[in-house]
Amino acid sequence: MGRAAAFVAPALALLLLAASAEGSAVAGVRIPSETTFAEYVDNLSEEYSFFTVSNLWLLIAAAMVFVMHTGFAMLESGLSRSKNTVNILYKNFFVISCGLVTYALVGYNTMYPPDTFNGFFRMGGWFGIDSDKFMEVMSSRSGNNFAYWTDFIFQAMFAATAATIVSGAVAERIKLYSFMVFTVLLVGLVYPVAGSWTWGGGWLERNGFVDFAGSSVVHAFGGYAALAAVLVLGPRRGKYDAKGKPKAIPGHNLSIAALGVFLLWFGWYGFNGGSVLDAHPERVGRVFVTTSLGAASGAFAAMLVTPLILKKADLSMALNGVLAGLVGITASADVLSPGAAMLVGAISGVIVVGSILFFDRIGIDDPVGAISVHGICGTWGTLAAGIWGEGRLLWQIVGCLAYAIVAFAVSFLLFSLVKLIMGVRVSAEEEDEGLDIAEHGQQAYPEFTGGK
Amino acid sequence: MGRAAAFVAPALALLLLAASAEGSAVAGVRIPSETTFAEYVDNLSEEYSFFTVSNLWLLIAAAMVFVMHTGFAMLESGLSRSKNTVNILYKNFFVISCGLVTYALVGYNTMYPPDTFNGFFRMGGWFGIDSDKFMEVMSSRSGNNFAYWTDFIFQAMFAATAATIVSGAVAERIKLYSFMVFTVLLVGLVYPVAGSWTWGGGWLERNGFVDFAGSSVVHAFGGYAALAAVLVLGPRRGKYDAKGKPKAIPGHNLSIAALGVFLLWFGWYGFNGGSVLDAHPERVGRVFVTTSLGAASGAFAAMLVTPLILKKADLSMALNGVLAGLVGITASADVLSPGAAMLVGAISGVIVVGSILFFDRIGIDDPVGAISVHGICGTWGTLAAGIWGEGRLLWQIVGCLAYAIVAFAVSFLLFSLVKLIMGVRVSAEEEDEGLDIAEHGQQAYPEFTGGK
Amino acid sequence: MGRAAAFVAPALALLLLAASAEGSAVAGVRIPSETTFAEYVDNLSEEYSFFTVSNLWLLIAAAMVFVMHTGFAMLESGLSRSKNTVNILYKNFFVISCGLVTYALVGYNTMYPPDTFNGFFRMGGWFGIDSDKFMEVMSSRSGNNFAYWTDFIFQAMFAATAATIVSGAVAERIKLYSFMVFTVLLVGLVYPVAGSWTWGGGWLERNGFVDFAGSSVVHAFGGYAALAAVLVLGPRRGKYDAKGKPKAIPGHNLSIAALGVFLLWFGWYGFNGGSVLDAHPERVGRVFVTTSLGAASGAFAAMLVTPLILKKADLSMALNGVLAGLVGITASADVLSPGAAMLVGAISGVIVVGSILFFDRIGIDDPVGAISVHGICGTWGTLAAGIWGEGRLLWQIVGCLAYAIVAFAVSFLLFSLVKLIMGVRVSAEEEDEGLDIAEHGQQAYPEFTGGK
Repeated sequence: MGRAAAFVAPALALLLLAASAEGSAVAGVRIPSETTFAEYVDNLSEEYSFFTVSNLWLLIAAAMVFVMHTGFAMLESGLSRSKNTVNILYKNFFVISCGLVTYALVGYNTMYPPDTFNGFFRMGGWFGIDSDKFMEVMSSRSGNNFAYWTDFIFQAMFAATAATIVSGAVAERIKLYSFMVFTVLLVGLVYPVAGSWTWGGGWLERNGFVDFAGSSVVHAFGGYAALAAVLVLGPRRGKYDAKGKPKAIPGHNLSIAALGVFLLWFGWYGFNGGSVLDAHPERVGRVFVTTSLGAASGAFAAMLVTPLILKKADLSMALNGVLAGLVGITASADVLSPGAAMLVGAISGVIVVGSILFFDRIGIDDPVGAISVHGICGTWGTLAAGIWGEGRLLWQIVGCLAYAIVAFAVSFLLFSLVKLIMGVRVSAEEEDEGLDIAEHGQQAYPEFTGGK
Repeated sequence: MGRAAAFVAPALALLLLAASAEGSAVAGVRIPSETTFAEYVDNLSEEYSFFTVSNLWLLIAAAMVFVMHTGFAMLESGLSRSKNTVNILYKNFFVISCGLVTYALVGYNTMYPPDTFNGFFRMGGWFGIDSDKFMEVMSSRSGNNFAYWTDFIFQAMFAATAATIVSGAVAERIKLYSFMVFTVLLVGLVYPVAGSWTWGGGWLERNGFVDFAGSSVVHAFGGYAALAAVLVLGPRRGKYDAKGKPKAIPGHNLSIAALGVFLLWFGWYGFNGGSVLDAHPERVGRVFVTTSLGAASGAFAAMLVTPLILKKADLSMALNGVLAGLVGITASADVLSPGAAMLVGAISGVIVVGSILFFDRIGIDDPVGAISVHGICGTWGTLAAGIWGEGRLLWQIVGCLAYAIVAFAVSFLLFSLVKLIMGVRVSAEEEDEGLDIAEHGQQAYPEFTGGK
Repeated sequence: MGRAAAFVAPALALLLLAASAEGSAVAGVRIPSETTFAEYVDNLSEEYSFFTVSNLWLLIAAAMVFVMHTGFAMLESGLSRSKNTVNILYKNFFVISCGLVTYALVGYNTMYPPDTFNGFFRMGGWFGIDSDKFMEVMSSRSGNNFAYWTDFIFQAMFAATAATIVSGAVAERIKLYSFMVFTVLLVGLVYPVAGSWTWGGGWLERNGFVDFAGSSVVHAFGGYAALAAVLVLGPRRGKYDAKGKPKAIPGHNLSIAALGVFLLWFGWYGFNGGSVLDAHPERVGRVFVTTSLGAASGAFAAMLVTPLILKKADLSMALNGVLAGLVGITASADVLSPGAAMLVGAISGVIVVGSILFFDRIGIDDPVGAISVHGICGTWGTLAAGIWGEGRLLWQIVGCLAYAIVAFAVSFLLFSLVKLIMGVRVSAEEEDEGLDIAEHGQQAYPEFTGGK
């Protein structure tokens, strides 16, 4: 437990450093004085009115994306065993907190580099230092319809999402502090660099690669990072018998798992709807429609094919069908017709069922299906944007490969390094006992599980 | 289980048909090109600014109405036994998905017919075919303050609500696929036709019948449809003893039931607030106030009368008091004074307690009280709109009768038909075992219920 | 149980009185006729456009603050034992309902008195009587960017928050009806008077005391009221051994406790963001950023220091770290730089851990840590507004003392009075059995706890 200091301390040190570095600037970044504000209100122009509405929408959308973290936490813990619930919840609070802080420290300015960006890599610094940016929007039109603050927080919520995806796949056997270190690296460094390629003016964007709200940039990235982590980590004890045949390990609480999916669906309206980056009525309206129909068709399709394959109306598959539809629609929710949205969602719902069964069979133990939902369906959605959307198929394929390969390879490397230095897997005894007792000395439901 | 294909397949087939029918139109319905968009931003007029804000509000409100589905799912599963939890959650995901898809396929254009509507019935088609409508708003003022996309998704969320209400009343003994077929018919056909009478320019609207956000159009409709379904279905095994005396069957998880009611209350701000159909400050503000006071007074009243009758402070009754207040206020939330809102809500809270006890006593087994909350209080709210609101009492009575009778009669007929063709009730063994094992081969809480 | 009538009846009587007093005014407070509305749309000015957006934001923010009540209910019940769950949920629905109704009856007009306010105390009346205020905004600019309705509902949601805080600290041993009476007094009378000092033009505001969204006005007020109530009430049975050594009483459901904290965090974007009182892009954007970083740093800090002290990664402490960061940032979220926000949040996260351990040790039994989270960190946040924010430190100290002393002293007095008249604590037998059976004759999870 004393290791806590060793790994969390540097992060906090960095944080304090940044805060004190900013020292005298504490009072520097201020909103305009009351006089300026009065002038501002007097001078409200038509254009600024659209700016205000759009800015408000992005903030509300950011709060909705935050709800996705609630959804992930509920889904993951619901689909795992009760003896690991505290651990999963703890990790989820760490991930969102870490995502916000590292994005402020380095992520934001790495992902959105200045004009001199070479297209591949440029390390950024503390987002708060650039106080000019905070103000410029007041004096001149930057072409954006949101304040600098707003842009930061909306994108920061996305950053944390990428890391959350991994959390589910590695549940029930990963060491807490190893997960934390890996998360810091993934969300603080790797994600912003990869993101800059498509959204920060990088090489993929320059070649016309299209990924509206992040089927690849966020979801497939998280999914293939999860795949790498699972490969390094190995399956849970008891998941496969001596012959390698998978055994179902049922989740302990499908009510909160279902709640999680409902909350994710809700949050996705902010994730996709906010990615319009303004409040354009037709654009945002269309995104709400395509997102809804994508999710609904994903659920429908999973509800249709699952009983045909598994001979039962499996709820977990239905939940994953919803999420698959959402991930699939994400890359082109802004341009698809309603009919195409249904097709993309329905195909996602079919893919996810096959993919989950496939990974389960070949020994990739992913308790929540994150690799299939986010990885495979993220790739499918990105390709669909080249088929029915506005992307060119060739560059969509290149982009898919780039995100899949880089997320997988870098994560494999980093996580192997973490394994080498501090180990990644709890002992067999700890795993059997459950991480809640082993790592936290707590149980999530002491009264329901009879002290087990 | 193979029956899945038989019943879900047609829906999916329709879906694919619609999608392919739209085939070449996939690229057809597009937002204006970049040039047009730039012009659009340049030409933003005052009016358009109000349009943009109003449109955004309706989209956010649609997302909030979506949260009501989360609330219904939690409430229903919490108030039922754990052995039927998976089944209830599965049905809820089906209902919202089905509601969205059928509303796109036929519902929207049935509910909002063109000018040539005879006032009673006009079958509509795929909402996406009419791509002119998607664009018209850009070229001319339609008088509405929202885009076509936005109108569709807001109304689609309402459509799914009507079907969700039934789900609770029939819980714990209905066959999964029979419920699905009934839902498709109810939400895809019956609801939009009945809705067109009041909101689509039909005969009730023409005669001055008023139902602001749907106390009758949505809630009473769902409530009386539920009553019909319960009558066809019969009570749960063990609910009544040999002498017909009701026995309490307590819900398994009041925490998530309470969560559900909180989420419903939250979502209702979108349900009622969005029904203003624009962002008029006084109108939306008033609706928030009346909705809040209606819910609070409903809770208060139920908390007052329940201990007097039952000699205990029953939580389920308090929850139903909140919902009763919300349903009651819905028909006139836009015009009531705060004081009248409190009265309407408080009376709802009293009515719901009496109504639940009454139905329980006469052998109508409604596990969640849906018939009383949505049916009876929906009717009360519609009448209240004639007493303190702007409706004329006579036509309010006619409207109440129309919705109660039609919802009941048509549902009775359809559900009897479903019973005839495929049966509606699981076997006694399946009911005792629980639908989760029988229909889904899964348990919601395998660790808490000891494998039961 | 018959006592219900005795205590709830007066509230309902008052309610009905108010409603009927308003009698003929039922139809009086109306939105403008259609003609006026058409003119209104025609005459929309730039200024009014900002008004409309700002008004909409405050309404959405009010709905988000409502979600905080959902969060409190989940957090409190999750951190308590299952045998008191129904009781806690019941109390939470009572608190929000009571908060809304009493704020309408007397609270709003007490907290925002007219110009003749002496700065200390002025009793207000029914908010709905003043129908001029409902309309004035249409005819002239009041300088506010929200309708009267909107102001009321946003502030009413805050009022209920103050009472909810107490609910957690007194959980598991307080008499239901005594809690209700205390709540009515606290939220109906004491809170609005204390609030008027800072937000209603009172003596603290006149002297430059600053508390942006209520670190002291709402949170510390609730926290010190909770301290007083806990002192009068005494610790739960079994919490301390014969030597006064504290024993951990673990919560029964950390999943919903974690859900509660996620929902509180989400709702806080409305609590702080709405407190800007308009939709100013930079202001609201900044508040979202500082609120996010405050919460994240609070979590980080608690996750760092807890393992050092307790030798385990305690989830409850992490949850309280999040809330501490949020409470701390609340007084100055509008002016802090991102770096200062991180510092304030991180210090809150450290304080809360120490404070919870301290109160636990000295015999103050607070099941959810409400005194530390809201009281102590509320005071810290208010002081921080004098260190890094725009308040003057001296007056910040005076304000902190004023709220701490008044909340504590008046609550102590009132709660002692309640104790004298009707008792405040359930019998030892009832406490051992659980309040759910004793007060409600119900169990929250009859199937999970084996009928216990």
